[in-house]
Amino acid sequence: MYQELKEAAYLANMTIARSGLIPVDSTWGNASQCDRQAGVMAIKPSGVDYSLLTVKDMVVVDLATGQVVEGRLRPSSDTPTHLELYRAFPEIGGVAHTHSRWATIFAQSRRDIPPYGTTHADTFYGAVPCVPALSQEQVEGDYEGNTGRVMAAHCQNTYNQVPAALAAGHGPFTWGANAAKAVENAITLEECAAMAYHSIQLGAPLLEQYVLDKHYSRKHGPKAYYGQK
Amino acid sequence: MYQELKEAAYLANMTIARSGLIPVDSTWGNASQCDRQAGVMAIKPSGVDYSLLTVKDMVVVDLATGQVVEGRLRPSSDTPTHLELYRAFPEIGGVAHTHSRWATIFAQSRRDIPPYGTTHADTFYGAVPCVPALSQEQVEGDYEGNTGRVMAAHCQNTYNQVPAALAAGHGPFTWGANAAKAVENAITLEECAAMAYHSIQLGAPLLEQYVLDKHYSRKHGPKAYYGQK
Amino acid sequence: MYQELKEAAYLANMTIARSGLIPVDSTWGNASQCDRQAGVMAIKPSGVDYSLLTVKDMVVVDLATGQVVEGRLRPSSDTPTHLELYRAFPEIGGVAHTHSRWATIFAQSRRDIPPYGTTHADTFYGAVPCVPALSQEQVEGDYEGNTGRVMAAHCQNTYNQVPAALAAGHGPFTWGANAAKAVENAITLEECAAMAYHSIQLGAPLLEQYVLDKHYSRKHGPKAYYGQK
Amino acid sequence: MYQELKEAAYLANMTIARSGLIPVDSTWGNASQCDRQAGVMAIKPSGVDYSLLTVKDMVVVDLATGQVVEGRLRPSSDTPTHLELYRAFPEIGGVAHTHSRWATIFAQSRRDIPPYGTTHADTFYGAVPCVPALSQEQVEGDYEGNTGRVMAAHCQNTYNQVPAALAAGHGPFTWGANAAKAVENAITLEECAAMAYHSIQLGAPLLEQYVLDKHYSRKHGPKAYYGQK
Repeated sequence: MYQELKEAAYLANMTIARSGLIPVDSTWGNASQCDRQAGVMAIKPSGVDYSLLTVKDMVVVDLATGQVVEGRLRPSSDTPTHLELYRAFPEIGGVAHTHSRWATIFAQSRRDIPPYGTTHADTFYGAVPCVPALSQEQVEGDYEGNTGRVMAAHCQNTYNQVPAALAAGHGPFTWGANAAKAVENAITLEECAAMAYHSIQLGAPLLEQYVLDKHYSRKHGPKAYYGQK
Repeated sequence: MYQELKEAAYLANMTIARSGLIPVDSTWGNASQCDRQAGVMAIKPSGVDYSLLTVKDMVVVDLATGQVVEGRLRPSSDTPTHLELYRAFPEIGGVAHTHSRWATIFAQSRRDIPPYGTTHADTFYGAVPCVPALSQEQVEGDYEGNTGRVMAAHCQNTYNQVPAALAAGHGPFTWGANAAKAVENAITLEECAAMAYHSIQLGAPLLEQYVLDKHYSRKHGPKAYYGQK
Repeated sequence: MYQELKEAAYLANMTIARSGLIPVDSTWGNASQCDRQAGVMAIKPSGVDYSLLTVKDMVVVDLATGQVVEGRLRPSSDTPTHLELYRAFPEIGGVAHTHSRWATIFAQSRRDIPPYGTTHADTFYGAVPCVPALSQEQVEGDYEGNTGRVMAAHCQNTYNQVPAALAAGHGPFTWGANAAKAVENAITLEECAAMAYHSIQLGAPLLEQYVLDKHYSRKHGPKAYYGQK
Repeated sequence: MYQELKEAAYLANMTIARSGLIPVDSTWGNASQCDRQAGVMAIKPSGVDYSLLTVKDMVVVDLATGQVVEGRLRPSSDTPTHLELYRAFPEIGGVAHTHSRWATIFAQSRRDIPPYGTTHADTFYGAVPCVPALSQEQVEGDYEGNTGRVMAAHCQNTYNQVPAALAAGHGPFTWGANAAKAVENAITLEECAAMAYHSIQLGAPLLEQYVLDKHYSRKHGPKAYYGQK
């Protein structure tokens, strides 16, 4: 069961592995894809080498209860965070999480990533927010669930326009129509973060709002004309 | 038809793919080559994976009208920009566009890339300009065409000596005798931009004008003695 | 004899070779693994190309006397440093040393690497210390041994919680349950150092102590729930 | 004739190609090796793709006259610089030149690369000097020869202890017992430059002179104990 879903999640995780977003040999990062009709998501198991990962290793988790439905391994420790995002953002089908260098630097610095250029505007319609830090109670309680809840609350109104957020002191989460798109957004976010960091050093102005509008609308929405039909 | 032209454009685009100028798996960047006699250019299709790209996918566009002459895919969304550059710069045969990190950082910061060393002088005879930002009217109108027109107007007198410009808030465009040379210039520009960024931090002086003269003339013009005859 | 130990040390050294922590073709870096029962460690030979390295080349050294027990090559010049760490830290089974760029930048700057995020907290339960510089006497005497002694003295109470230290003006040493884990910690340290460097530039606050507690305890100790059982 | 010499020069050039010191597809950089008895050096031809380079393409040049002795291609345009270094530094057998990013940033900034750590001290016994800029007369005259003469004059007393120099506004030259060693020094220099740049930002102190003494003497001179005998 869930073969197609597990394959999609598997392929997105393998893209993380060769993306340059994680160090050599590390098990960092994870991606998931959900099936709204079946009420489940497939996610990477916790702490397994990418070079040993197979489709069979993907863990299928119930979206409502968080219980493992299929798979013999433990799901990623970030599973509760993924679940909260799926629950809060009804239009997304995939989530990705990495500790990619430049996005994490902004997360550690508790700073939004402002839009300085069209590279950013093509994917993120505004600043990528660094969400509020968790309180001691939130950390000592259901930590991974609360990580998702704080992000979901902060991004509830913008998650379709800005498919990414930074967990304060932690790192980036991205989402999209499916796992592959979520990982693509993670890769784009990392490049935007690197450019933003150095643009700040050179005193860059924010991108004009009308350029932000133009670039976002040419790739998204009814008048999009980027890519093949 | 246009087989040779499409092959040249294809190979230049594949050089972008393995150049390190774009993120893993991204479809960013594009290169074109024109045939002045036939009055056409061949360019990458919009939003297609490099790993799936073939010579057949190249799109041939009429230089005068901008209409697709051959090819079943949509041309790059930057096609109107390429066309304006070919129209304004009669001596060029290739154009390339990327969002390479360091050149884009200068573009986002609305700064020229000054000549600090001979790496720069070997290809660019003076600063690589960041051209004026487009007005709201220019963005909301024929955006991609206006991007090319503003660049063309700004570089009209220098395009042979400085085969590159930065679109403000966007990224670099480069050109040359053909698509391969345009991409080579994009790669060189990126390295010069990286060096310039950090040279600025160390308080570097501009390269002496007489060294700029020497390095440019030893690679270009009647007294060139670099490379094989 | 010692075949298994030498294989473990060999594999960890080969991970350094492909980790990106050392320049192309360099012989930099070394890893060792010890066998407490046999009273020996296996370490990389000095100045040998990784591409030519074999399991047979590993040098087995007596933990107590420092004498070569097996192997026809000279052990790494850092052998006395490794030995001092094994002697001082009874619970470790592997040591790694590199000149990885960002960790070395902190070592050269005589600065600890503070914990700015959960990437750090997952492995290092507090700042990674830059230990005091050696005196002229310590350098002119048993230099490599003293390098280990100063590190061991400084980290005696924290080596289980923070499996890394920076030798001032030199570079990072990391340790762990075995050689593979020591190298994994070297790779993680390098990424944390890169992030810390740039987080400092953006004015990042230190990670909240309660997040440090949470992330460390979820991967280490009796209540760990990261990875597979 | 000169087969062995050409092979040595060829292999050193191919190490530059895969070193990461030059951009993808570029023809940047060159290495040479000399045969003092035969009074010649073998060097890379000018502007040839590394991927097409063969041993046969190496150009053999007379050390005294600078005339091509063997080979059907033009030698590197930096040939006169290499020749001046061989003439001034009787104990060297190889020279390498690159525009590697971080070393070039120091060259463009007209700054020495100070010794901040043992990575530097293992190869360079003191600061790597940025030599004085050439005058307009020196540039307009025998430019490449003068580049070598200024470097040679500046480094005459230190070239054995510090096998590298930065040509102001240009980039690094390195040397050694043969071409392979010169390229190895170029790779080491680049890493030291990258570390130095960022150590400066963190306010690093210079490496203690007694550590510089120790590290240099343990790899060089009669009491060396690094590497295999």
